[in-house]
Amino acid sequence: MTALVFLDPSHPAGRVADAASPQLSVLDQGVTRGDGVFESALYTGGVVRKLEAHLARMAVSAASCDLSMPSAEAWRAAIATAVAAYDAARPSSGPGAAAGTAGDTHEAVVKLVATRGLESAGHGTSWVAVSPASELGRRQRTAGVAVVLLDRGYDSTVAERAPWLLMGAKTLSYAVNMAALRHARRNGADDVIFVSSDGRVLEGPTSTVLLAVRDGDTKRLITPMLETGILPGTTQGAIFAAAEAAGWELGYGPLVPQHLMEADAVWLVSSVRLLAPVNSLDGIDIARDARLHEELTAMVDAIR
Amino acid sequence: MTALVFLDPSHPAGRVADAASPQLSVLDQGVTRGDGVFESALYTGGVVRKLEAHLARMAVSAASCDLSMPSAEAWRAAIATAVAAYDAARPSSGPGAAAGTAGDTHEAVVKLVATRGLESAGHGTSWVAVSPASELGRRQRTAGVAVVLLDRGYDSTVAERAPWLLMGAKTLSYAVNMAALRHARRNGADDVIFVSSDGRVLEGPTSTVLLAVRDGDTKRLITPMLETGILPGTTQGAIFAAAEAAGWELGYGPLVPQHLMEADAVWLVSSVRLLAPVNSLDGIDIARDARLHEELTAMVDAIR
Repeated sequence: MTALVFLDPSHPAGRVADAASPQLSVLDQGVTRGDGVFESALYTGGVVRKLEAHLARMAVSAASCDLSMPSAEAWRAAIATAVAAYDAARPSSGPGAAAGTAGDTHEAVVKLVATRGLESAGHGTSWVAVSPASELGRRQRTAGVAVVLLDRGYDSTVAERAPWLLMGAKTLSYAVNMAALRHARRNGADDVIFVSSDGRVLEGPTSTVLLAVRDGDTKRLITPMLETGILPGTTQGAIFAAAEAAGWELGYGPLVPQHLMEADAVWLVSSVRLLAPVNSLDGIDIARDARLHEELTAMVDAIR
Repeated sequence: MTALVFLDPSHPAGRVADAASPQLSVLDQGVTRGDGVFESALYTGGVVRKLEAHLARMAVSAASCDLSMPSAEAWRAAIATAVAAYDAARPSSGPGAAAGTAGDTHEAVVKLVATRGLESAGHGTSWVAVSPASELGRRQRTAGVAVVLLDRGYDSTVAERAPWLLMGAKTLSYAVNMAALRHARRNGADDVIFVSSDGRVLEGPTSTVLLAVRDGDTKRLITPMLETGILPGTTQGAIFAAAEAAGWELGYGPLVPQHLMEADAVWLVSSVRLLAPVNSLDGIDIARDARLHEELTAMVDAIR
């Protein structure tokens, strides 16, 4: 079941639509050109997590694409309408916890999409879709993932010199990300870490890379630096804030695959799957420090 | 006015739909992930030009994306239904030539799209949309285009080593192509020629690059080699066949921008705009041999 709400100036709280019926023109440039931006947020326990971080990143994506977007206020209103419709259509899941309340452990994805719309319309198309989160993602939080390293084709300096490549934007043009995941699965793996043509660790097709290193009593959390052309991870950002408050050291790479091999733990981090520990890289098992994972999982669970 | 026909196993001639109404699910992976492939063919004088070349290239694109697609037969039937519906809905354009007959000079785009469909459906979504061709493209055939050279970020060997980058596939994930065109227009140009990070001439965001060189009585037509990761141009292919029959020499680059600067004529070639002569590169006027352009235009006009 999916709850669908379009952003529409004549409906300040959003226009509820039937997700089971066709609702989009085949001429929308979001379809014909993958020309639009999106975000996926986690909705659980009555809260859309990191909502403001998602809205802020979406605004940056839209600006990179010269896309005009509804206001944050309009998004918030449409999201509230969409999650209420979603909750109304399903039974409660937690023992004694009604749908959409703090004790409700059901997990849903809140997908925000803004396209360039019809060429003839001169304005975009924007909607919120709330759907159940995948069971697979939830399993991978504990089971972990086997990862292959794949060449992303770009070198790590391209983002600065070629803004038209939209490196820091989360666009609807995800065909390569999906192809990389299929390539991984065909090769017996679960996920991918992209590496730049000059050998730098970048990101996953739908996640941020995080690694932790113990050094005596010091715990250090490291992620690739944004200048390599990766997407700023909203979950990575929230984890870094929590880890810093808990006394961890923080670092921003340039990272190479060897750093992943030698870390005490590596994760793929994203908003809906949250923290997926990496079990192996290109078929080689890597360290999976259980304590570090536990600590980080507690931080992630506390993100609001 | 757009004529729209979905490919549908229960409608062997295709299912006619109203393009002015929403016809696509917002959950279709063609929208949410730009996960699909497409072709744009020219329909004029009662003929969909190079139909078989478009169907063949689309099958290659689909195979690169592990996308199952309707048969060529199903496409042909749906296309016939769509152009008939398009013709029925408009007046004739040529003097004394009825819509859809040989003398009809009206130009339309036949867009073929095949997406991965709904995640829950297990089959794709495919349609044919026939719409009027843009006036701008038609004007650029004689006016020509000012072009900027833009870094594509990839080096010219990436296609071979990283098939997951889908370099030879025409996917719906065109956000970068569109961003490059916007970048060009913001800088006073009309179009783009992409250059690889190692300095090779690649292709336009929606076109193939062609250059001609006179050498005494010899006329030589050159296009970048496919191994650089560009899309095989259906119009370039048809022009090469016609030029060879007319006694031209043919060549496949590795080309660098200097070759474009020194050529006697450079064109951006595509199925709907056809042959757009390049007037300037990065603001520097280049040669535009009128005779060569005339000869090539005659060849292009004869393509069926």
